[in-house]
Amino acid sequence: MPTTISDVPTPSFLVDYDKVKKNAQKMIDTCERLGVQLRPHMKTHKTVELGTLMTNGTNRTIEVSTLEEAEFYAKNGFDDILYAHPLIAARIERCKKLAYRLKAFHVMIENFHGLIALLSSPLENGKKWSVYLEIDDGCGRSGVPWDSGDVIKLAKEASESPYIDLQGLYLYNGKTYEATDSKGIENTNKEGTDLLTNSHKRFTDNNIECRTLAIGNTPSCSRPHEGMNVLTEFHPGNYIFYDMQQVTIGSCDIDDIACHCGFLALSYDGMNEYPNEFSTFVDNPDLKVIGFSQEIGKVTTKSGDKLNYDKYPIGSQLFIIPWHSCATACQHTVFYVHSGNKITDMWKPAKGW
Amino acid sequence: MPTTISDVPTPSFLVDYDKVKKNAQKMIDTCERLGVQLRPHMKTHKTVELGTLMTNGTNRTIEVSTLEEAEFYAKNGFDDILYAHPLIAARIERCKKLAYRLKAFHVMIENFHGLIALLSSPLENGKKWSVYLEIDDGCGRSGVPWDSGDVIKLAKEASESPYIDLQGLYLYNGKTYEATDSKGIENTNKEGTDLLTNSHKRFTDNNIECRTLAIGNTPSCSRPHEGMNVLTEFHPGNYIFYDMQQVTIGSCDIDDIACHCGFLALSYDGMNEYPNEFSTFVDNPDLKVIGFSQEIGKVTTKSGDKLNYDKYPIGSQLFIIPWHSCATACQHTVFYVHSGNKITDMWKPAKGW
Repeated sequence: MPTTISDVPTPSFLVDYDKVKKNAQKMIDTCERLGVQLRPHMKTHKTVELGTLMTNGTNRTIEVSTLEEAEFYAKNGFDDILYAHPLIAARIERCKKLAYRLKAFHVMIENFHGLIALLSSPLENGKKWSVYLEIDDGCGRSGVPWDSGDVIKLAKEASESPYIDLQGLYLYNGKTYEATDSKGIENTNKEGTDLLTNSHKRFTDNNIECRTLAIGNTPSCSRPHEGMNVLTEFHPGNYIFYDMQQVTIGSCDIDDIACHCGFLALSYDGMNEYPNEFSTFVDNPDLKVIGFSQEIGKVTTKSGDKLNYDKYPIGSQLFIIPWHSCATACQHTVFYVHSGNKITDMWKPAKGW
Repeated sequence: MPTTISDVPTPSFLVDYDKVKKNAQKMIDTCERLGVQLRPHMKTHKTVELGTLMTNGTNRTIEVSTLEEAEFYAKNGFDDILYAHPLIAARIERCKKLAYRLKAFHVMIENFHGLIALLSSPLENGKKWSVYLEIDDGCGRSGVPWDSGDVIKLAKEASESPYIDLQGLYLYNGKTYEATDSKGIENTNKEGTDLLTNSHKRFTDNNIECRTLAIGNTPSCSRPHEGMNVLTEFHPGNYIFYDMQQVTIGSCDIDDIACHCGFLALSYDGMNEYPNEFSTFVDNPDLKVIGFSQEIGKVTTKSGDKLNYDKYPIGSQLFIIPWHSCATACQHTVFYVHSGNKITDMWKPAKGW
């Protein structure tokens, strides 16, 4: 293991332990204050260590984006796992194994394909499929359109099946990504909360039971308003690292960002829309990346000034705050964890699907 | 192992064995015909199996882009490995181990930082550092500008050191990526060949010996002209898979592309410049990807027609030809190899740096 940051081989993904600890604690506190269950998303980092930190040491009540992650966390002693991706029939067999293995394993559906897949493969030994129904607020990422008749049809059919426990309603709340400051996020949160409670009312009016009202995403849960205490679950993920995108939206300050990567190994995500923010150099705000070619990146200045080779001699380590930490972390097979300048640990994320 | 393509979990990276075999053989034949040594680049795939195929079973004379790859191939019995990335001092110790372990290990330099790193860390037991000097034709990717005084200064100092064997001159020939058809590539190849032979003449005029004249990249080596027989080494890599970028440039036909990936797990590379080509759906030319959100991709039609859910029911496998196969392969921890519809093997690429 390298001793200090300057010993780390490049490119690398660096995790600031003090900051991830602070980010994790802050979200735990927020959820406690509002009286909602935190179900943190593991997709951003996919490590055991941050799973433990984000669940306050319980290793319970998490969310994942792939079955590989679900299997990885199950193997590592985690339980109460929501596989938060539209279910398709081809994945039922792996889901079954997880449902039998874990005390609580939940799937997410957004259409009749997913519902029929579950009804065609009931669980045995008194187990039921625990299901979240995802609704879409119009973003078009995933979920059944919130105002469509299919919401009630799906929920009714699910709740009436002896094989299914309709656990909850889930909204990703993707419109928060259109915000440009924390006020904008709060407004979208109000809309999202109303949408969930109204949908829940439609359920009640139709005699459909459903215990959990869950809202997704890092902007929403980082800037909640007090009225969100009517919800029961928060599903943020990216907040453990944050990134320049979250700064731009208004979810956090630049000092909250808990990761940077040694040059290179970024993701192209955001380069198009935010050429100046997508690669922010620590201590060197005038630098930006303008292109990649396999293991080579091209750096120039925003000001048009010449690169200062006295300041950045060839072979220097450069530190970049990623635009999108999920997409960047995903390029790495190991994270170097540091406290101050000292490397304290190396974490290995789950990989693949 | 899955039996047929429809059993493969999605998203996946599929390799058409018959096509990679054909692509490998064609490049071997080209090099034999021209009398140049083929030194295939491993960066695109990073697997043992394709290394063996591309070297015609010899497992000798390859090129890599990271030290992780070099160590992976060394461990798997490969030899004569060129680490084709601008050398920095922080990587000397790992290079030393490779130099002692292998019969032939070569490094690449493009500036005095790299040269000084070598001179400060000479090899022992009669070993010398075997060095390629990279020149830049103006693309600015890497290499010392071909027309600068530094080319001769670097070469002279390297060739006069008792610790260095100046092996060769290398040109990436990046201007081929500006081509739009095979004729364009051939013209650039002429310029690149002249640039290498002229540089070599400058060497000879300065009493600098150098045995190898090497030219890089898949477009150049896929569309060589007969005059390139004055060169001694070809360094292509991407040709083993090809991709839509290479079709657009004129390096190959769409039928030569030997990989596709199950939806999703692409790279953003090319999305900006080539929105219509960057995700080409096999058998469905009207479809295109317009965005990603972690494990979810959005697909629409180029024509503006509605998506035909009868043709693509939810849960269907969709097959995408990547814009950039290097960047796409890199997202996967396993490649599913098929011959026709049958899965014949699973290959694991090297990962990390």
